[in-house]
Amino acid sequence: MEQSRLEKQFAFCLEADKEKLIQRQTLLSNGEKKENDAEHAWHMSLMCILLSEYSNEPIDVLKTISMILIHDVVEIDAGDTYAYDDKAKLSQRDRELKAADRLFNILPDDQAKKLRALWDEFEEGKTPEARFAHTMDNIQPAMLNNSTDGRVWKERGVRLSQILERNKNTPDGSEVLWDYSLNNFIRPNVEKGRIIED
Amino acid sequence: MEQSRLEKQFAFCLEADKEKLIQRQTLLSNGEKKENDAEHAWHMSLMCILLSEYSNEPIDVLKTISMILIHDVVEIDAGDTYAYDDKAKLSQRDRELKAADRLFNILPDDQAKKLRALWDEFEEGKTPEARFAHTMDNIQPAMLNNSTDGRVWKERGVRLSQILERNKNTPDGSEVLWDYSLNNFIRPNVEKGRIIED
Repeated sequence: MEQSRLEKQFAFCLEADKEKLIQRQTLLSNGEKKENDAEHAWHMSLMCILLSEYSNEPIDVLKTISMILIHDVVEIDAGDTYAYDDKAKLSQRDRELKAADRLFNILPDDQAKKLRALWDEFEEGKTPEARFAHTMDNIQPAMLNNSTDGRVWKERGVRLSQILERNKNTPDGSEVLWDYSLNNFIRPNVEKGRIIED
Repeated sequence: MEQSRLEKQFAFCLEADKEKLIQRQTLLSNGEKKENDAEHAWHMSLMCILLSEYSNEPIDVLKTISMILIHDVVEIDAGDTYAYDDKAKLSQRDRELKAADRLFNILPDDQAKKLRALWDEFEEGKTPEARFAHTMDNIQPAMLNNSTDGRVWKERGVRLSQILERNKNTPDGSEVLWDYSLNNFIRPNVEKGRIIED
């Protein structure tokens, strides 16, 4: 029997619950627990509301938050790919495309298309909203990593060049927030030897 | 030295991280872990985007999501009060007001006022946005509790009258969603003896 619209919507809402099991590499500020994808998306959304005034370009905040809320849903199937794991990153795109095909299509057609389009837009990173969402995606973990005195960077032997490469588009969303992150979250950890200067 | 606007904003963003440590009574759908406030707010926000078409009245979705994202921030200081813990509920309001005074004032004045007003509006529950946010707040845990075969309801000996009392305003946000929740999440668990019929 064909599911009703509401059944499809709740099926997706329930499936999305699994994002809470996808662990990231970032530690929470208390240093005792790693963050998961749902917590990360909540934190980014809250930061988006509070910091959208620093976007380089005007943004539609609701659209940006919608993008943020679902940007990691594909990791339910594809898993979290650590930013500095070059091997895993090779297969990341294929794994995530397959996940997007399955997951968004749990929804009624119109919403499946809408969320897929938002996710594609985020991935492409070419609109003001996608640029700002990526800025949040990079600044939120930098803030947390700094709050634990750079512990994750230190333990993983992360080099400054890797962080700068990963953040090469962060200023495209907000120069002000990138400057703040660089000067307050990243540079102090280079000075303290928590990030390898190269 | 007075903090800059940006320093105050990031101080609040970092403080908010503690919401990830506030454990609720709801189990995740895998039944292995209890949900925390940040995960709950993310899930409600996502559901708000997907289900806002069922609001009884037109709502400003961005405003509703903003309200949802911060509705539990006060629990950083005040802790989570279980919906059916009558003793804890007596002191809840005082504890949460004190928390709101401290937490929102970490922000620059204009944002402190804006978020406090959103939180007050949620607490009062008298606008279409606040009503729909409360509907999300009640339907999301009902969906999860049903997904674990009513385990939390069963373990805590929850009675149907308690659930109906707690949900007395849920239909004010959305009659369609309340009907769905009652018929698909609550009643089947009464029939299976996971919720006590009284």
